Amino acid sequence: MIPPLQQLIERLKALPGIGQKSAERVAFYLLNASQAEVEQLADAVHRIKSDVHRCRRCFNFATDDLCPLCRNPKRDQDVLCVVAQPWEILKIEKTGEFHGLYHVLGGLVSPMDDVSASDLTIDALVGRVQAESVQEVILALEPRLEGDLTGMQIAGRLGPLGVKVTQIAQGVPVGRDLEFADEATLGRALRGRTPVS
Amino acid sequence: MIPPLQQLIERLKALPGIGQKSAERVAFYLLNASQAEVEQLADAVHRIKSDVHRCRRCFNFATDDLCPLCRNPKRDQDVLCVVAQPWEILKIEKTGEFHGLYHVLGGLVSPMDDVSASDLTIDALVGRVQAESVQEVILALEPRLEGDLTGMQIAGRLGPLGVKVTQIAQGVPVGRDLEFADEATLGRALRGRTPVS
Repeated sequence: MIPPLQQLIERLKALPGIGQKSAERVAFYLLNASQAEVEQLADAVHRIKSDVHRCRRCFNFATDDLCPLCRNPKRDQDVLCVVAQPWEILKIEKTGEFHGLYHVLGGLVSPMDDVSASDLTIDALVGRVQAESVQEVILALEPRLEGDLTGMQIAGRLGPLGVKVTQIAQGVPVGRDLEFADEATLGRALRGRTPVS
Repeated sequence: MIPPLQQLIERLKALPGIGQKSAERVAFYLLNASQAEVEQLADAVHRIKSDVHRCRRCFNFATDDLCPLCRNPKRDQDVLCVVAQPWEILKIEKTGEFHGLYHVLGGLVSPMDDVSASDLTIDALVGRVQAESVQEVILALEPRLEGDLTGMQIAGRLGPLGVKVTQIAQGVPVGRDLEFADEATLGRALRGRTPVS
């Protein structure tokens, strides 16, 4: 196989969810695509690194100093939703249930991976709560050990500031049969039971 | 969503076999990847168009005037395998059963898609058979109407030149249950039956 084709297939295979067959299919597609389409793809890949930075305030992806959410004056300024990674913001936005601002930690506390609270943007979160008119901080972290550890560290730091700290409900997923829920999920769902009337 | 991210996801979704979820996954991966990895991918995409041409002799992909197969003196020079597209060469090479040269037609005769024999590289194939020491031309075309039409046109042009024209065997796929073979395949397999001893 000629080197440019071999190299493109190798680069594509390094991407998540793309195997040998998919990489070959995409490479052959690009070989036959128009010059314009190929250049637009190469340019879009290039610009994802050169044009995207982190928001100075919330650490979401941004092309300017502030991300579009932080720049939007219509967002509730008094409630912050804390997430581990920027892409989790998209998921929460799609629910249409949250209208406040975000704070991206950049990861979760993980003794296994040697990630401690000081590696995350928790200091910046404390700073925001002190400087901005924040009434509530909602923790939207994964319901596993790392999420719980991180949540506890944040609650410990924010508690003395008198701000309300909540976490998203943990329970059985909507639309799934109860028999497929694991014990830990079912246990949390029971402890977090809510009145029905 | 910020424009560079949106644009990359749109470009990725235009590729074959990549949907919204896969495109988002790849885009977020690239956002977190190293500058070097992203640049190498963008460069590999760019070079697939700028550095790859068609082989002057067989119309396979090539970075030089001739493709690596045409440049290889160890390949049998007296047998040509005719394929519709360059990527079919890779599949045949993987079998390890063919050691000759190739000829890429660039498509198949298709009345439906308004592709006629003159749109393909059949003139060049005839020229090669006349100019080179070709003893046999093997047709490795898809066993459907377009492949059959194309094969007939080629056989008609090459017949008067006295070269042997063959086609790859059509029959039931190896390792599949007979009950899953369609009638057309089974019919061709019966007509093409071979002695077992």
